[in-house]
Amino acid sequence: MQTDSYLESSMITIIQTFHKYSGQKYKLKKAELKQLINNEMNHFIMENDTLDELFADLDQNKDLEIDFKEFIALIAMVTSACHELFTLK
Amino acid sequence: MQTDSYLESSMITIIQTFHKYSGQKYKLKKAELKQLINNEMNHFIMENDTLDELFADLDQNKDLEIDFKEFIALIAMVTSACHELFTLK
Repeated sequence: MQTDSYLESSMITIIQTFHKYSGQKYKLKKAELKQLINNEMNHFIMENDTLDELFADLDQNKDLEIDFKEFIALIAMVTSACHELFTLK
Repeated sequence: MQTDSYLESSMITIIQTFHKYSGQKYKLKKAELKQLINNEMNHFIMENDTLDELFADLDQNKDLEIDFKEFIALIAMVTSACHELFTLK
């Protein structure tokens, strides 16, 4: 069987990174999201005092945890912002 | 400077894969999306006769091209579906 493409490997890395911080409950508490951002996205998101706001925005169903669908929305948002930087004239 | 994390590298891979098929216009025509799916996502999306339907779903602004925001929505959808498979009991 052919191996996964770089794109497919990237999607798996996103899932594995989420699991690294969520554990088997597959949800991130605010402290876990903060750790993930600080350790894994510190070039793309600066630590600042807006984590509360970001968390509230992501937590669409207001259960005070970030599930995978909510997390992937963050990844999509950040990747789109990066793409815009890449394509600025 | 510290190197990018695996998660950050994954986000960059997603952008680079999009550019590989979009070229400098930063939009995918239907034939380009088809090539990208066949070459880079063939373990995750099967080629079938629903490309027309998928394209119409993704093309939110109906300009007959997929821009990066529309593409990242596809990646989010496919990654979420994968995550559900991973976490099925």
